[in-house]
Amino acid sequence: MTTSFADRLTDLVAARGPVCAGVDPRPGALPAGLDAVAWAEEAARLLGPRVAAVKPQLAFFDDDWAQVERVARAARAGGALVVADCKRGDIDSTAEAYARRILGPESPFDAATVNPYLGRDALAPFVRWAARGGKGLFVLVRTSNPGAADLQSLRVVGDDGRPAETVAERVARLVDEVGASHHGASGRSLVGAVVGLTAPVDVVARLRALMPDAPFLMPGWGAQGGGVEAYRAALDARGGGALVSASRSLTLPWEGAAPADWQGRVVDALARMRTALG
Amino acid sequence: MTTSFADRLTDLVAARGPVCAGVDPRPGALPAGLDAVAWAEEAARLLGPRVAAVKPQLAFFDDDWAQVERVARAARAGGALVVADCKRGDIDSTAEAYARRILGPESPFDAATVNPYLGRDALAPFVRWAARGGKGLFVLVRTSNPGAADLQSLRVVGDDGRPAETVAERVARLVDEVGASHHGASGRSLVGAVVGLTAPVDVVARLRALMPDAPFLMPGWGAQGGGVEAYRAALDARGGGALVSASRSLTLPWEGAAPADWQGRVVDALARMRTALG
Repeated sequence: MTTSFADRLTDLVAARGPVCAGVDPRPGALPAGLDAVAWAEEAARLLGPRVAAVKPQLAFFDDDWAQVERVARAARAGGALVVADCKRGDIDSTAEAYARRILGPESPFDAATVNPYLGRDALAPFVRWAARGGKGLFVLVRTSNPGAADLQSLRVVGDDGRPAETVAERVARLVDEVGASHHGASGRSLVGAVVGLTAPVDVVARLRALMPDAPFLMPGWGAQGGGVEAYRAALDARGGGALVSASRSLTLPWEGAAPADWQGRVVDALARMRTALG
Repeated sequence: MTTSFADRLTDLVAARGPVCAGVDPRPGALPAGLDAVAWAEEAARLLGPRVAAVKPQLAFFDDDWAQVERVARAARAGGALVVADCKRGDIDSTAEAYARRILGPESPFDAATVNPYLGRDALAPFVRWAARGGKGLFVLVRTSNPGAADLQSLRVVGDDGRPAETVAERVARLVDEVGASHHGASGRSLVGAVVGLTAPVDVVARLRALMPDAPFLMPGWGAQGGGVEAYRAALDARGGGALVSASRSLTLPWEGAAPADWQGRVVDALARMRTALG
């Protein structure tokens, strides 16, 4: 039987720590002589045996799935899970096409990020394909950017006509619902949540309470200023279930031109990040 | 000086009617002997001189921008505007990369669909690139799927602590705000809105009141059951500003295998749609 996504993630975090490495080839920061994809493959090969998950952002590959798949295979060879950061959100046959493409049996990705603005319809095909193949998804719940507040922090009116939860909390309940029948042996679900480290600690704690079994993917480390307190608030009752994601600060941790020993710098940055996370 | 997106759209709707043709190569429905891209190019060539806008959905091209660009050029040769239906929603350098890719000077697209869940940050780069090049965007406000209600119809709490507008209405105000300084001679803005024809008529009217100058892109015609009343409710004070989008029912309007005279069937379907819209 296929091991569930949540269980594989649980084992990897236990063995390697809660780090997800964002592999985003930013023009201007890449080592000399390497194009975007060559660097991303090398970085994935370097980090694949060292981190729990590797996360390429599709936009930095011009949405070229074939290129990102090469990066995914390089990361997987080292044992890491691969999260396709594509933030897709669509319905019907479109969502189905995306879900099959990203989480189907021929795909080297283990999970994808998904946007919930279109509601339950937009999540269903991803849940279905993930369940079929031992894969997972991370639904955007509370993002790490300043504009997150524009919609996600709005307070909605409850059934009794009085102020109730926020939009992000409502999405959190949706995540918990659609993930309910998809638990692994670890007790965790294949439907996870993106919750930024930049959110206030009490907001993170409240989201964890609403999604006790969802793996959290937490962007905003380093470059975006997020920190350890939010990570701790995201730990579940079993003391895990959270993955801290870093991109620039981990995989391109220098100012200006890349140094010749860039691989060493990346491994150093990973060690610092693990120490900071405790 | 570059003519604004809204003005080009206004002129095209006046000359050709308010139709946007969704060119989505669905496997199983394509004419014999044509692969997805070959059909899409032929359909774009057929419809480019006949409709105001052509809208390829990226998922049906496996996110292959080069392929979709061929379709866009075929549609543009006939004078239609091309909307990239990609529903991207991301932040910072990622949103910048997408916006530049889709609306930059080398791109054959005139507009893109954008997801607002990440807030103002996710819209800003698209607005910037659109303004620079006489292009536009359509922000998802109220989508045409059943799950639209899950989030978009939630009522939020106002500053006075009492029930106020819905999430979709809040997004509508955001659309109006970010589009405010980007009006064309037509009085319309380059920041438009996706509002499904499946929404109740009073919901559409309320969204129009909140976005008096936004071009509306309205999916849900035909296949999704949407209708003429919602379209009429979306017309602005100048009696226009709304574009009805149809995919299957317009560009693949047959059951089962495609007939040999498929181009004629598409043109017939367009005539029927124009008649129905008045």
